[in-house]
Amino acid sequence: MKASRVYNFSAGPGTLPLPVLQRAQDELLGLPGLGMSVLEISHRSEPFERIMSSAQNNLRALLDLPRDYHILFLQGGATLQFSMVPMNLLRGTGKRADYVVAGTWGKKAVTEARREGEVRVLWDGETEEFTRMPRRDEWQPDSEAAYVHITSNETIQGLQLQWEPESAPAPLVCDLSSDFLSRPIEAEHYALIYAGAQKNAGPAGVTVVIVREDLLERVPSGLHTLLDYGVHAAKDSMHNTPPVFSIYMVNLVTEWLLQEIGGLRKMAAINVEKAALLYRAIDESDGFYSGHAQADSRSRMNVTWRLADSNLEPLFVEQARARGMHNLKGHRSVGGLRASIYNAMPLAGVRALRDFMLEFRGEHGP
Amino acid sequence: MKASRVYNFSAGPGTLPLPVLQRAQDELLGLPGLGMSVLEISHRSEPFERIMSSAQNNLRALLDLPRDYHILFLQGGATLQFSMVPMNLLRGTGKRADYVVAGTWGKKAVTEARREGEVRVLWDGETEEFTRMPRRDEWQPDSEAAYVHITSNETIQGLQLQWEPESAPAPLVCDLSSDFLSRPIEAEHYALIYAGAQKNAGPAGVTVVIVREDLLERVPSGLHTLLDYGVHAAKDSMHNTPPVFSIYMVNLVTEWLLQEIGGLRKMAAINVEKAALLYRAIDESDGFYSGHAQADSRSRMNVTWRLADSNLEPLFVEQARARGMHNLKGHRSVGGLRASIYNAMPLAGVRALRDFMLEFRGEHGP
Repeated sequence: MKASRVYNFSAGPGTLPLPVLQRAQDELLGLPGLGMSVLEISHRSEPFERIMSSAQNNLRALLDLPRDYHILFLQGGATLQFSMVPMNLLRGTGKRADYVVAGTWGKKAVTEARREGEVRVLWDGETEEFTRMPRRDEWQPDSEAAYVHITSNETIQGLQLQWEPESAPAPLVCDLSSDFLSRPIEAEHYALIYAGAQKNAGPAGVTVVIVREDLLERVPSGLHTLLDYGVHAAKDSMHNTPPVFSIYMVNLVTEWLLQEIGGLRKMAAINVEKAALLYRAIDESDGFYSGHAQADSRSRMNVTWRLADSNLEPLFVEQARARGMHNLKGHRSVGGLRASIYNAMPLAGVRALRDFMLEFRGEHGP
Repeated sequence: MKASRVYNFSAGPGTLPLPVLQRAQDELLGLPGLGMSVLEISHRSEPFERIMSSAQNNLRALLDLPRDYHILFLQGGATLQFSMVPMNLLRGTGKRADYVVAGTWGKKAVTEARREGEVRVLWDGETEEFTRMPRRDEWQPDSEAAYVHITSNETIQGLQLQWEPESAPAPLVCDLSSDFLSRPIEAEHYALIYAGAQKNAGPAGVTVVIVREDLLERVPSGLHTLLDYGVHAAKDSMHNTPPVFSIYMVNLVTEWLLQEIGGLRKMAAINVEKAALLYRAIDESDGFYSGHAQADSRSRMNVTWRLADSNLEPLFVEQARARGMHNLKGHRSVGGLRASIYNAMPLAGVRALRDFMLEFRGEHGP
């Protein structure tokens, strides 16, 4: 059964590449030649080992990842990583952890870290209502910290770091959840990165954690088994049953990125083009639309904006929906509108939204 | 694409009902009328809220669950529950927790609990090489414990409790992972039950936790957010993004149990019949086959047995596989053979295995 598909601008779980969904559909009753669905195979079986190592190899190729990084597939989303990072890297060190807080997710990460030790907020965007990322010259980590934590893209506010942090004097930890795989990164600058898959890497239910080997020596003993990076690295994410289907989907998505898109440099170019279409429509609207993020911090994943007349926003959402563009309402904490344009959102979808923005302004603008 | 399916006797992830897989396949590009796959929908969307509340209602109906129990859908498998149970119910109480250890999983649960406080092993089957469950008269919990923990089915050894524990003087916590939904239970005897879905309830990636309201008052403050039952109950499993697709699958499986099977009493009768076929083939083999579990503790989910001549076991596994019966090798820690015959394993699959057992004995027996 083939259903007609809408453009889904959800902030996550979000839209997935159609060829990936089609492949998963084709194989859902049985992996080729196996006679079992991927939903039914043992995680200790050879077919699953092949899937997992393929997903790891794809990620390694896409990110140009040095050999001394482990790629783990964990559960619990980025939220559990907010806890696991300080449990593994702050607990018992007697040091403090430094956090950049540029939006809702960075702030939540701090809340969990404080349960494990001292936290210093290295930079706080809340006084400016989370409208920008720190500038490069505001980024001054020191070597006293157990680690420095940053969120590369704030999904709710629509902010994205436009510059790549250098290796910090302390290990650099990055929550890449909402721009993971949307652009190349300098992987070796980071000691640990993590990303809930449900934006660019796959469906909800798996979190990719990439951790440099030497960091594992810092993990204190006595941690609960499933909260210990050392265990997950030693067991290659197989201490207990991993989320098999979600990892299978990550494999298909990363294969799509490599084979259909041609890697992260090309993906980034498409994402730049998509975001520019929407930001231009905002900037050229004579104030009918206004962006939430300051220009140097605009996210290419989550475009957040308002209408000068906020009373028109529900009408905008409703009429867009009638045209097959769904989930454009902003997060309740920010209001306004939000278009999440992850990797799998086609250029055609963004053009349709841009055209509608122009049309709507033509109808309701001055 | 329809693939020819084999009989999959894997201990988990294991076989799923074919009508459930077909429905998931039909809907994989778009839920009816929605234009988005369940893999792409926001967990805050109305379609997902309907799926989740349907899954909860189905579970409530199947288990005849009183209103004062929360049904949570968490991540991390039973293994994370080995940790969350003592974090939430033992930490800071000054009491001890009592554990029944009848196999590998009960033993693992104790390891995690000891990180949080004193544990007393109330009954230990290891001295008898994990060949049986405690008898009812060996079950003597007292009121001093923070809780009593039991594992209803030991997947690796193939043991299952054949009697239902009474409400204990202390709150009764049960790991039901591998026989959840295979039989009716007296839900009100338990304060908390949990089950990794990947045996009888769905695919890997979601854990069903059912917790009685009054137990939440015992949760200490200061727990990490995602490890706190109180948070999950208050937010109805939506503090962060839940494993959307896995919950969708639980909904389909529980619908199948209600509508196609007709509830847990009927499911249990089928499971009794399936298990009896295999145990009879073992018992009537004049010692050619011998069961691992003592007769009063035989699991109806995981049938474990050996051949008198263990050198024949690889041949048995290989020939069964050639006949379309996969994954019959026993767990490395127990050896021998294991047939996991969860709800979704059809009677025809068990008959085929039984027939092959007779044939193999005819060929290789005395």
